[in-house]
Amino acid sequence: MSSPAFSLSKRIRPTPFTPRVEAVGCKAYTSYNHMRLPTVFRTFEEDYWHLIEHVQLWDVSAERQVEVKGPDAAKLIQLMTPRDLSKAKFGQCFYAPLVDESGGMINDPIILKLGEEQFWLSVADSDVLLWAKGLATGYGFDVTVQEPDVSPFAIQGPKAEALVAKVLGEEIRKIRFFRFAEIDFKGHKMFMARSGWSKQGGFEIYLNDSSLGLDLWDTFWEAGQEFNVGPGCPNLIERIEGGLFSYGNDMGYEHNPFEAGLKKYTNLDADIEFLGRPALEKALNSGVERMLRGVKIEGDDCPACMKDWDLSGLSGEPAGAISSAAYSPRLKCGVAFAMVNKDFWDTGTEVTVHTSDGDRKGTVTDVPFI
Amino acid sequence: MSSPAFSLSKRIRPTPFTPRVEAVGCKAYTSYNHMRLPTVFRTFEEDYWHLIEHVQLWDVSAERQVEVKGPDAAKLIQLMTPRDLSKAKFGQCFYAPLVDESGGMINDPIILKLGEEQFWLSVADSDVLLWAKGLATGYGFDVTVQEPDVSPFAIQGPKAEALVAKVLGEEIRKIRFFRFAEIDFKGHKMFMARSGWSKQGGFEIYLNDSSLGLDLWDTFWEAGQEFNVGPGCPNLIERIEGGLFSYGNDMGYEHNPFEAGLKKYTNLDADIEFLGRPALEKALNSGVERMLRGVKIEGDDCPACMKDWDLSGLSGEPAGAISSAAYSPRLKCGVAFAMVNKDFWDTGTEVTVHTSDGDRKGTVTDVPFI
Repeated sequence: MSSPAFSLSKRIRPTPFTPRVEAVGCKAYTSYNHMRLPTVFRTFEEDYWHLIEHVQLWDVSAERQVEVKGPDAAKLIQLMTPRDLSKAKFGQCFYAPLVDESGGMINDPIILKLGEEQFWLSVADSDVLLWAKGLATGYGFDVTVQEPDVSPFAIQGPKAEALVAKVLGEEIRKIRFFRFAEIDFKGHKMFMARSGWSKQGGFEIYLNDSSLGLDLWDTFWEAGQEFNVGPGCPNLIERIEGGLFSYGNDMGYEHNPFEAGLKKYTNLDADIEFLGRPALEKALNSGVERMLRGVKIEGDDCPACMKDWDLSGLSGEPAGAISSAAYSPRLKCGVAFAMVNKDFWDTGTEVTVHTSDGDRKGTVTDVPFI
Repeated sequence: MSSPAFSLSKRIRPTPFTPRVEAVGCKAYTSYNHMRLPTVFRTFEEDYWHLIEHVQLWDVSAERQVEVKGPDAAKLIQLMTPRDLSKAKFGQCFYAPLVDESGGMINDPIILKLGEEQFWLSVADSDVLLWAKGLATGYGFDVTVQEPDVSPFAIQGPKAEALVAKVLGEEIRKIRFFRFAEIDFKGHKMFMARSGWSKQGGFEIYLNDSSLGLDLWDTFWEAGQEFNVGPGCPNLIERIEGGLFSYGNDMGYEHNPFEAGLKKYTNLDADIEFLGRPALEKALNSGVERMLRGVKIEGDDCPACMKDWDLSGLSGEPAGAISSAAYSPRLKCGVAFAMVNKDFWDTGTEVTVHTSDGDRKGTVTDVPFI
């Protein structure tokens, strides 16, 4: 059963863009933060080629924002992540692992500092709102934690900058990668970042009024005709090729940031207070035993990975587990992410991948693949 | 687009029963607590008639357990709910709203007291684990909060008791409604409650070892042949007829327990300490302005409700919103849940339902419908 139907209900929330997404042929959704996230419009491969050649509009409303606001906001945000945010400024985006006292990952949001007392966490698929609210309540922090009416809308692909400049003005070209600025859409102020869940370049507009969703979509759709604009969404093939890990698929609560390959966002040397510091120091000192790595898989196709596939060494020893996989049309082989045991994680190590379709030869490699 | 495909991935976790559920023809899933929850095997209506006439096996693993264990467990659990748990005993199940300081509902689990220092919360679709863990961390409580390897398996329908007695012994007939007891499945001890998300009667076995899932399914499947056993799942039609509200569909964080019709589980007179007491006292004193009610909808069919449908009085005044709807084959009309404004909530009040398929006549009514 590779493609069951999705029984939608109000609980799997529609977005401000849902009517347009459906009108232009969304074929499948996943659920993400209790919301509909499109996954395919034509086929994964057709969507993929269009994304790397043209420009796409993405309904990524499911990247919900958790707003933390108030005198203790900065303290609470720092408490949740080992990434040093002490020098954070308005206009910067920070990719940051969130961990609890044991060092296990709670989420890996992008953090936006909107002011000295106001932050947004643009979260992956777990209820960070409840985590932040629980901490705030227990510690008695003077903050409010809530989900604002904010729905990210991404413009992605090599022609994204040209399209966004056409709609919002040439000034936007000055926005650097992982920086955000205020834009004006028909008199409405919103934030826009040069970011997005692809490696093809582009922007994310933080739509802050659901009632403007269809107008935003239509404006970019019409202006995009000359650029061969199409509908799109985070693409399974492109995100694996590009080395973009997915919380809940490739790493989760059972992993610490070192295992998730996020050592550079784990600033143990900084003079900051965060949950899990002793646990992470201990983990680092005792040595990391497994890490997220790439695996190239031989074959003319590659099945989708719906649950862990075991990985073994050539003599059959346990070597780890594959979490995501796709066939790469550019590399002409399967590409996959795997949590790989230390003895097997060197680049070039040959392994056997026990896919749902039978065993295949694999080679451990660095990410990104391309 | 009434039935898009569901793009499954590891993030939408399979269950210990997934291979069997797929083998017997699961046609659609929803996502619930980051896990696959089957929604239909034949059609909603065929599944419905089978449920009310025979016995079904349900994979409700998605009702995840949040285990709170340790010296401060009872204090933390009580802090999370306005339901008085001071006299709770081993063997009792407690349906309980969870609220935060503002009185907004976080979830509505069934709470099982396993011991003086050990509780399970069998949760609806939100990450209560993060809420409980955040509170425990902030307050410095001496507890562990984790998700055990426990996957509920329900046997539901009028022949459920006969089937369960055949497999587990006649003793199980003594288990009263919303009580649980320890059972022995082939030498493995597990808990089983007389409970389940239907009004047709039955049991829920808290499978505590994933590796036994297929054996458990197969044992009941084989023993159930004489009872015309079939696969099933929480059924949209039956749960509305039976008055079973769904967190995230019919009520959510924006509602307090009074609005959700849960006043009897909100024990403001009890000498207990819980979050949100002042907010709930204030809400009660200032008067509840809207409440979850039933609405009968005229017509020979009824569309599914994917987002709020407005409800209006006969003169067009706003009267509330429908959250879930289905056609009742027994009542020969649409049955729906709605958050109804005070001026319209009396039984028999006529309203106009603005369905996704056009306007229909409706009548406010009590639940359950049957």
